[in-house]
Amino acid sequence: MDLTPARGTRDLLPSTVAVRDHVLARITEVYRRYGYQRIETPALENIERLRGRDGGENQKLIYEVLRRGLEPTVAADTPLSDLVDLGLRFDLTVPLSRFYGANRASLPQPFRSFQFGPVWRAERPARGRYRQFNQCDIDILGEPSVLAEVELIEATSAALAAAGIEGTTVRVSDRRFLSAVAEHSGAPTESWDGLFIALDKLDKIGWDGVRKELADRVGLAAQVIDRLAETITSVQGLDAAKLADQLAGALPNLGDEVLSDLSITAEGLPDGVSWEFDPTLVRGMGYYTGQIFEITHPASGGSVAGGGRYDKLIGRFLGTDVAACGFSIGFERIVDLLAVAPEREAVAVLYESDTPLTTVLEVARTLRADGRSVSPVRRSGKFGAQLGRLTEWGFTSFVHLRADATEPGEERRLGDKAP
Amino acid sequence: MDLTPARGTRDLLPSTVAVRDHVLARITEVYRRYGYQRIETPALENIERLRGRDGGENQKLIYEVLRRGLEPTVAADTPLSDLVDLGLRFDLTVPLSRFYGANRASLPQPFRSFQFGPVWRAERPARGRYRQFNQCDIDILGEPSVLAEVELIEATSAALAAAGIEGTTVRVSDRRFLSAVAEHSGAPTESWDGLFIALDKLDKIGWDGVRKELADRVGLAAQVIDRLAETITSVQGLDAAKLADQLAGALPNLGDEVLSDLSITAEGLPDGVSWEFDPTLVRGMGYYTGQIFEITHPASGGSVAGGGRYDKLIGRFLGTDVAACGFSIGFERIVDLLAVAPEREAVAVLYESDTPLTTVLEVARTLRADGRSVSPVRRSGKFGAQLGRLTEWGFTSFVHLRADATEPGEERRLGDKAP
Repeated sequence: MDLTPARGTRDLLPSTVAVRDHVLARITEVYRRYGYQRIETPALENIERLRGRDGGENQKLIYEVLRRGLEPTVAADTPLSDLVDLGLRFDLTVPLSRFYGANRASLPQPFRSFQFGPVWRAERPARGRYRQFNQCDIDILGEPSVLAEVELIEATSAALAAAGIEGTTVRVSDRRFLSAVAEHSGAPTESWDGLFIALDKLDKIGWDGVRKELADRVGLAAQVIDRLAETITSVQGLDAAKLADQLAGALPNLGDEVLSDLSITAEGLPDGVSWEFDPTLVRGMGYYTGQIFEITHPASGGSVAGGGRYDKLIGRFLGTDVAACGFSIGFERIVDLLAVAPEREAVAVLYESDTPLTTVLEVARTLRADGRSVSPVRRSGKFGAQLGRLTEWGFTSFVHLRADATEPGEERRLGDKAP
Repeated sequence: MDLTPARGTRDLLPSTVAVRDHVLARITEVYRRYGYQRIETPALENIERLRGRDGGENQKLIYEVLRRGLEPTVAADTPLSDLVDLGLRFDLTVPLSRFYGANRASLPQPFRSFQFGPVWRAERPARGRYRQFNQCDIDILGEPSVLAEVELIEATSAALAAAGIEGTTVRVSDRRFLSAVAEHSGAPTESWDGLFIALDKLDKIGWDGVRKELADRVGLAAQVIDRLAETITSVQGLDAAKLADQLAGALPNLGDEVLSDLSITAEGLPDGVSWEFDPTLVRGMGYYTGQIFEITHPASGGSVAGGGRYDKLIGRFLGTDVAACGFSIGFERIVDLLAVAPEREAVAVLYESDTPLTTVLEVARTLRADGRSVSPVRRSGKFGAQLGRLTEWGFTSFVHLRADATEPGEERRLGDKAP
């Protein structure tokens, strides 16, 4: 029988879980300090809630769940969609929007949400890409001011640092800035979505590739593309201190609020957070409405965290807009970057096949009373070889209970390598 | 738009999650001391692995997942099962068996597994019964001796006590004892499964109900039923000290190993663990092969934990039998019993609409540096009413930042009730 996990999913062994738990505990402690409270939503959502929510490509990747109580044979011409009523969530933002709509009367205003949990996407499996993976999101709901952005960036940077990810850079832009650039370049409004999608690929395909896509696929005129590239290039690598002035100069149509929000972000972030304005930053989702941000780390190809403001998403569930801003840590990516197991102390109680089990149990109990992790293991094979195996398995010391022992032998450390 | 979670599932609000996290942390700490290591398996398993595994009723409750890449319209006479390739796990034991088969070369021998995670069953929703719920299991794989049983019972009792569930009683029986009773009563081997299922209902339907079911549905003769009832009644409420002798007297066909295992369990459990032999204990699953156990608590109708030895289950995946024994805490049930929130300290930084945001951020940062949980909240409405809301939301103190403040006001405690 095939014992491998379902395609694209994986088993997590104890050493992997230990790293993940360690990282999560560090992140959780930071988010607690920043006032975030953990919530949980179910893995399954009604299928119509998952569809058509600006989830972009992710909606095509939904695992769909069969209705219960169907006949064992499907009638002719049944649309597949008639057989489905639930789906596995593909992110934590759509469920959060529903959750907030359903529960906001019992929640603080603003509400600082922390979510950690699995999501599912039926993507083509690839190295480091799984069909079930965990997301790690903080969101501030009901806070219209840029205070939310600054607090999210600060908390996420602190959480990454606590997890051991140092030397990160925060890249910030604003969807309203991108709209102003598009307008300023003379691109028609209906082309903006395509324009942003093309621009999002800049770091992968360069300006030549972006220009080609803007011409061929988005259908922009050469002079529009020139102006676009010129405007963006003119505000790349700006000094934070001059940012507002230079943006205002380059884009007369940019709203004062955008500039003031960027200034507050610049001023409000603590000294330890290294950040830059990145006019090429787009982010994939259609639902962003204000500042957008990513955190990059030299050791990681892509970003290690990303987020932004999405003031219109909850309104689609609730009928009333709710200011919302979130930041998601790429949990799977950062545990891959770290992959260093936390220290573990573990004692093996080695006993012979004729050591009375009650003696084994008592010795284990005594050692556990000191808070130590203790496992009885029966003696087998050559002593040295068994000690080697214990070391491999992560035990750090052992006691040996002979059959006639009245007292356990002295506790001895296990070496780092098999003897 | 309907904002309620999918039928039979639920959202977990921060106060609920806080209780659950607190209980889980206590349990995890105890299980760490007992040498258990946490693993994770994917929520989705190939559907054929979930079917036909002695999962009893649970197999009928599987959420089935549609294959990807199907045509939008189903062809005539398609069997429903052709459309499905994955299912959501309905317990953690079947995935553990697969996991162990796939990974045992990298695992300690014996392997002490700890699992905590969601499972899904499409049951009729009822009060306190959910379609997604968490299981909390420890298992010892590769330990044939009754040391496993004693250690599992001891660890689970300690975990429940640490979580705040005191005054529990462990009920122990053995599937081999039940088989000996059935044989001794003269019930034909092929009737045993039905016999056990009927006996399992004793606490719900009483002896009259069980007798009727044994006669009508299992088809046992009156004298067989009499002998069965008599044997079981004769060994109810036995004193632990006399248990082995009295069982041997009542059941001459009972194997010595069963008696010796029960004696070691009796002797090996620490003084703090209150336990009794319960000859009416059956447990629902078909896969048990040795001792079975449950833990009851006066405040809970059913059991708060259950488990047993299942030496044949892993063999069905692996082709080779592996000794296995497990104990599962009814996590959802015990958090309902407890439902006491852990202490939480949380500071609100109240600021006016014209307090500079940089000042707000700095004050929050200073308070957080001491490890405290801090959330900026904008002043709104009447001051007293807002303090009342802050208290309701779980804040324990606040500082007030006036617009012209150069220093934050003094920190003040919030009362337990709105002022």
